Amino acid sequence: MLKPLGDRVVLKAETEEEKTVGGIVLASNVKEKPTTGKVIAVGEGRTLDNGQKLTPAVKEGDRVLFDKYAGNEVEYNGEKYLVVHEKDLVAVID
Amino acid sequence: MLKPLGDRVVLKAETEEEKTVGGIVLASNVKEKPTTGKVIAVGEGRTLDNGQKLTPAVKEGDRVLFDKYAGNEVEYNGEKYLVVHEKDLVAVID
Amino acid sequence: MLKPLGDRVVLKAETEEEKTVGGIVLASNVKEKPTTGKVIAVGEGRTLDNGQKLTPAVKEGDRVLFDKYAGNEVEYNGEKYLVVHEKDLVAVID
Amino acid sequence: MLKPLGDRVVLKAETEEEKTVGGIVLASNVKEKPTTGKVIAVGEGRTLDNGQKLTPAVKEGDRVLFDKYAGNEVEYNGEKYLVVHEKDLVAVID
Amino acid sequence: MLKPLGDRVVLKAETEEEKTVGGIVLASNVKEKPTTGKVIAVGEGRTLDNGQKLTPAVKEGDRVLFDKYAGNEVEYNGEKYLVVHEKDLVAVID
Amino acid sequence: MLKPLGDRVVLKAETEEEKTVGGIVLASNVKEKPTTGKVIAVGEGRTLDNGQKLTPAVKEGDRVLFDKYAGNEVEYNGEKYLVVHEKDLVAVID
Amino acid sequence: MLKPLGDRVVLKAETEEEKTVGGIVLASNVKEKPTTGKVIAVGEGRTLDNGQKLTPAVKEGDRVLFDKYAGNEVEYNGEKYLVVHEKDLVAVID
Repeated sequence: MLKPLGDRVVLKAETEEEKTVGGIVLASNVKEKPTTGKVIAVGEGRTLDNGQKLTPAVKEGDRVLFDKYAGNEVEYNGEKYLVVHEKDLVAVID
Repeated sequence: MLKPLGDRVVLKAETEEEKTVGGIVLASNVKEKPTTGKVIAVGEGRTLDNGQKLTPAVKEGDRVLFDKYAGNEVEYNGEKYLVVHEKDLVAVID
Repeated sequence: MLKPLGDRVVLKAETEEEKTVGGIVLASNVKEKPTTGKVIAVGEGRTLDNGQKLTPAVKEGDRVLFDKYAGNEVEYNGEKYLVVHEKDLVAVID
Repeated sequence: MLKPLGDRVVLKAETEEEKTVGGIVLASNVKEKPTTGKVIAVGEGRTLDNGQKLTPAVKEGDRVLFDKYAGNEVEYNGEKYLVVHEKDLVAVID
Repeated sequence: MLKPLGDRVVLKAETEEEKTVGGIVLASNVKEKPTTGKVIAVGEGRTLDNGQKLTPAVKEGDRVLFDKYAGNEVEYNGEKYLVVHEKDLVAVID
Repeated sequence: MLKPLGDRVVLKAETEEEKTVGGIVLASNVKEKPTTGKVIAVGEGRTLDNGQKLTPAVKEGDRVLFDKYAGNEVEYNGEKYLVVHEKDLVAVID
Repeated sequence: MLKPLGDRVVLKAETEEEKTVGGIVLASNVKEKPTTGKVIAVGEGRTLDNGQKLTPAVKEGDRVLFDKYAGNEVEYNGEKYLVVHEKDLVAVID
């Protein structure tokens, strides 16, 4: 299992097809393209200057909109995942 | 539904026509062009260094002036929206 | 009405003619040219790291000296205004 | 009257002649040339992160050494002044 | 023994072969390539602004995913190690 | 008298000859060349975010090692001085 | 004696020969090359935002790994030393 560190979140990105059928579609002429995925694992959150841990606002299973160029792609047990910082998550899709 | 994260705000931008009829029109020779829109959804706000959440100063339904180049355009259920950071909102139009 | 957000201030810039007759004139060989205007509306101020709102030091009606290149020009009900951050205000002219 | 905002200070710069007769003369081969002036007006000072106002360390009438390239030149009632940030003041000349 | 200072962590990087057999494989067209290693030693952690030491979230023996371009390679008693900052560790692999 | 402001320190730089006879000599192939001087006057120190003044760690009469390219050269009553920030002082020479 | 200021540390760098015989050898194809030395003197440490002095984690006599390109080389009583910031020390070698 991948346990993200700090304010990182592990995502399973949705494919282009899913996106078009589902809710969010990117405007084609936008430079920074966000896209959608499902939250697989969430870190403990970043630590504030007063030592307090800031629990991330998303949880396992959430469907989220994120900045496409954010994060690192990794492959784990044959599946591709994306590890992003919480600040790169734009919105939860309900 | 789109639930913006952190200090993000979801906007429905007004079209050029609405703007000219309504109140705010941009001077044509200005480099950073703000424009107007309606607030659709508001995040929980950014977290201060002391752990306090800072509730955004705008609410659903507000008509706002924002920096045109700010944010990400997204399409949701066939409608286009703009997701911006609260700091990119310039003024509320009353 | 325009209600500026955060530490923003709405100004009505004075024309060149008013400036020469009035008090402040810019030296012509200065790169960053400040100029003068009247305060139309003032935001609630920026929020400090401890959550405290910092009320702006200027108020409606003040005549101020500001950085010419600061802010966004907007047109509202046929009048042009300038929206600047409080830090771009240089001095109050009494 | 010019009332500088924040940590700004209004100065009346001394002319080259005064400087040579007085105390401080700049070495000619120095890139950042400080120079001297008299303090005309002082702002309320910058606000610390804890909300405390930091009263400037100089007062009206002080003769100061400042960074020549700092600040904005303004003309007020036919006189030229310089508006600088307090941090651009190098030393008080006693 | 190498005792890393501050928020540094000493790692023993896994070879390409181990990675392919194990869990994580990098997508070949990704610019910032994270890779895997074992934690050998952990510093006392960074010091927050309030003076509190922030104990690192990883411990000796953890298998971690890290940014390939992070840190300094060192050789100690004939073995190569990598010294990275804790923030360059992406995830723990369980 | 020159009374440095904030965290500034007024130094009387030692000439090349003094340096070679005294203790510290710079390696000739080093890009950032520190050099030596005597402390003439010390500011009240920088103000921390909590409003506390941080008294400088050097005092009048100390012989110090400093970054050669730091600070502004000034001439006062026919003597050349250097005004540097305290952080540009490298070490006290005892 | 050299008394480093702030978070500075005075080091006596080990020569290439000592390094090869001792423990740490740098990989030749690494861009930022750390190297080893002995701690000669330690400053009082940096001051946190709350005014607290942060005592350095190394002490006189420690053998340390440091960033080769960090710090200033100085010569004192015929010996060459290196003055670095504590953050440029990578690890203590036990």
